[in-house]
Amino acid sequence: MLNEKSTDNTQPEELAAFPAVIRLPIHWGDQDAFGHVNNTVPIRWFESSRIGYIEHGCSDMMKETRKVGPILASVTCNYRRQLHFPDTVRVGARVSKLGRSSLTMEHVVYSEKDAAVAADGSSVVVMFNYETNRPTRISDAVRSAIVAFEGKSFD
Amino acid sequence: MLNEKSTDNTQPEELAAFPAVIRLPIHWGDQDAFGHVNNTVPIRWFESSRIGYIEHGCSDMMKETRKVGPILASVTCNYRRQLHFPDTVRVGARVSKLGRSSLTMEHVVYSEKDAAVAADGSSVVVMFNYETNRPTRISDAVRSAIVAFEGKSFD
Amino acid sequence: MLNEKSTDNTQPEELAAFPAVIRLPIHWGDQDAFGHVNNTVPIRWFESSRIGYIEHGCSDMMKETRKVGPILASVTCNYRRQLHFPDTVRVGARVSKLGRSSLTMEHVVYSEKDAAVAADGSSVVVMFNYETNRPTRISDAVRSAIVAFEGKSFD
Amino acid sequence: MLNEKSTDNTQPEELAAFPAVIRLPIHWGDQDAFGHVNNTVPIRWFESSRIGYIEHGCSDMMKETRKVGPILASVTCNYRRQLHFPDTVRVGARVSKLGRSSLTMEHVVYSEKDAAVAADGSSVVVMFNYETNRPTRISDAVRSAIVAFEGKSFD
Repeated sequence: MLNEKSTDNTQPEELAAFPAVIRLPIHWGDQDAFGHVNNTVPIRWFESSRIGYIEHGCSDMMKETRKVGPILASVTCNYRRQLHFPDTVRVGARVSKLGRSSLTMEHVVYSEKDAAVAADGSSVVVMFNYETNRPTRISDAVRSAIVAFEGKSFD
Repeated sequence: MLNEKSTDNTQPEELAAFPAVIRLPIHWGDQDAFGHVNNTVPIRWFESSRIGYIEHGCSDMMKETRKVGPILASVTCNYRRQLHFPDTVRVGARVSKLGRSSLTMEHVVYSEKDAAVAADGSSVVVMFNYETNRPTRISDAVRSAIVAFEGKSFD
Repeated sequence: MLNEKSTDNTQPEELAAFPAVIRLPIHWGDQDAFGHVNNTVPIRWFESSRIGYIEHGCSDMMKETRKVGPILASVTCNYRRQLHFPDTVRVGARVSKLGRSSLTMEHVVYSEKDAAVAADGSSVVVMFNYETNRPTRISDAVRSAIVAFEGKSFD
Repeated sequence: MLNEKSTDNTQPEELAAFPAVIRLPIHWGDQDAFGHVNNTVPIRWFESSRIGYIEHGCSDMMKETRKVGPILASVTCNYRRQLHFPDTVRVGARVSKLGRSSLTMEHVVYSEKDAAVAADGSSVVVMFNYETNRPTRISDAVRSAIVAFEGKSFD
């Protein structure tokens, strides 16, 4: 494949604290008229890393009764360095806060070409009951799964 | 045109404090597999409102010498309510902080269908010198233009 | 609103044959590293004009039993002229062929700034039965609605 | 990495005729409200495979004098099967026609999960002189590079 090199899977220290890491090629078309990756693109990468985390770390979150599910309450992204095609990024996700009905996830975007962090940020996810239209408690099953996936407790 | 109604141009009070407002139709394809507008889309709208603000409020910002220009340092978005096709949004932008080499812009997304704010957030823009690779002072011309466009001073 | 001018709604002759026309602002971020609108963007506009056509011209197409619905079989786009921000495009859609289980739609993208066609193309939409996993006949109700909306018959 | 499996790099026979193949993960957000990958996404993949082909097969195409470069004249995509997250696609590109001032590239999208072709299509690329505003001859260097990369001649 043109866009793949044999990668040793060792994570750089910038990603060491992240239990979920995905690897994504930059598309030429991710670049905008300034000639670097557009600011909306890392927001899409954050989304992909959130989904990857949930799938692998706490998949029960998506399997509650049909009327309960996670919704995104907010997202923040800090653009640390410009990204250009061609490059491959590694995007890490970890839970940094685990509240009653919401959790905070931290994201980091690491450029393989630059061997440096290109962006970081966070998102707040709320468990929501679409019937009562209100936030609802994160279940014990999801809570335990996250603690196990992170290998640490949240107090 | 199918997607246009005669609009009275009166702004709702939620947009009253925003000197720059653009109006954008929601595309069917802005919706994701959850059936509502994807979280990356308001980030694109924020960008369009930032560009609209700069063009109309402080166009000199883009006309500095070739080695100086604005870059986006960070963006935050709070998702207040789900958006669906068909709808038209109004996106407001205003400068809330005017620093030495950076400014903070606030954004709000107002749904015409719901007559309510659907998202808000902010972005930090830095004037950057690509030659020295460091932030640089916002010029007096840009500063005066912003003060005039906002109709208020920043202290 | 910054991005709107009072428009007289007269359609240019390039759009005269299209019963469905939508009007869309170009986003700054629609442009890629070549500095003009990226080739994927007119494909999104085609989609929006297809949806607009169906909603206004043959909305029954989306209201068949849950197991029958339209799917996109193919799309073609001819790029006639480069588009740049700021501009507003008008996107027309019309049905040019009405077959037993599929129809062909033609699309045109007209730049208001250039007063010229910037792209055109077509898409083939098939009525599909997700239960039998096969194309299915376009209903008489949809057929009549299209004939009425187009103001012509298809032989 | 969550989204990678050790892949044997053997290409399936559907890709055998394509000298340029890239491998791309599907993002959750590539899916639209119908719950499958949106029709604009393969168009982006085609673009990425075109760029990959040019970079590896005929990079001189991008290095002509500043006033000459390739532009996309048209694109066609046939949607053969619905794609869903999670999956990884392989996207092949090959030159099928090599004219005086234009070439036709064929694209194929292969789903690893389904072990089947999900989409195919073609694009027409024209060498363009931005000074005279007219198509211009594809140089002998580019021509030879394509013949070598494809391992066949074009008559």
